[in-house]
Amino acid sequence: MEQRISLVTLGVRDLARARSFYEQLGWHGQEVEETVFFQAGGQALVLWGREKLAADVGVGDGVGDDDGACSFGGIALAHNVRSVEEVDRVMSVAAEAGATVTRPPGPTFYGGYAGCFRDPDGHVWEIACNPGLPLDDAGQLTVPDFGATP
Amino acid sequence: MEQRISLVTLGVRDLARARSFYEQLGWHGQEVEETVFFQAGGQALVLWGREKLAADVGVGDGVGDDDGACSFGGIALAHNVRSVEEVDRVMSVAAEAGATVTRPPGPTFYGGYAGCFRDPDGHVWEIACNPGLPLDDAGQLTVPDFGATP
Repeated sequence: MEQRISLVTLGVRDLARARSFYEQLGWHGQEVEETVFFQAGGQALVLWGREKLAADVGVGDGVGDDDGACSFGGIALAHNVRSVEEVDRVMSVAAEAGATVTRPPGPTFYGGYAGCFRDPDGHVWEIACNPGLPLDDAGQLTVPDFGATP
Repeated sequence: MEQRISLVTLGVRDLARARSFYEQLGWHGQEVEETVFFQAGGQALVLWGREKLAADVGVGDGVGDDDGACSFGGIALAHNVRSVEEVDRVMSVAAEAGATVTRPPGPTFYGGYAGCFRDPDGHVWEIACNPGLPLDDAGQLTVPDFGATP
């Protein structure tokens, strides 16, 4: 098991406000399709609309849901792996270990393959194989140049 | 600005259950003072009691708080920097940029110096100078051998 967190995605209510905040802190990112990617060491910090993120990972928005208002804290962690088979394997092991599968493994809108689960405390993980965000030999992720306005 | 997330701390209700879950997934960690550290690439994934984490970062537990049940999603991100002065500088800039300071910068129980804020969407950050978790030249963090039971 290569232990890593490849992406930390923060669900935000106002993307422009959130991007501006992090840029004032000195972070430089790229915006692509209403998503902002910041290189963060060997991983990425990502800003994305909270409702889109919640829908993508298969959970409620966390505000006024039937299952309790704290159902989604607004952060998703991604563990990117090297193959479709590894996605399937990790998702299967997680389910056996007590995770709640919120999105079964399958092709993703970004051309990869991934599944999502919540750990026993409700923290949301995506297990992904994403050829658009390649990993180096050490498992470090580099956000590519999307050709977006810096 | 060296862009990075040094630690991702998950607040958990039952540390043994949470540790067992991640170990079943194949993660190997060290438990020190009721805190579990997993090396995760050049950062650390940390499990800590949710109430302790909330108290430490200066927010409510998120369950039944006056300021709304979703006030704390149970995850704190740490950006570890190289000096006390840099902690003060980032905290000051964050406050000017609209962050809510939940713990002013000061010495920490772990022998470092840190402050905490919430970004405009409520996501919790700790800006820390932590000599116990040194950064290499590239800003990567290595969890030291705490001499704990593996």
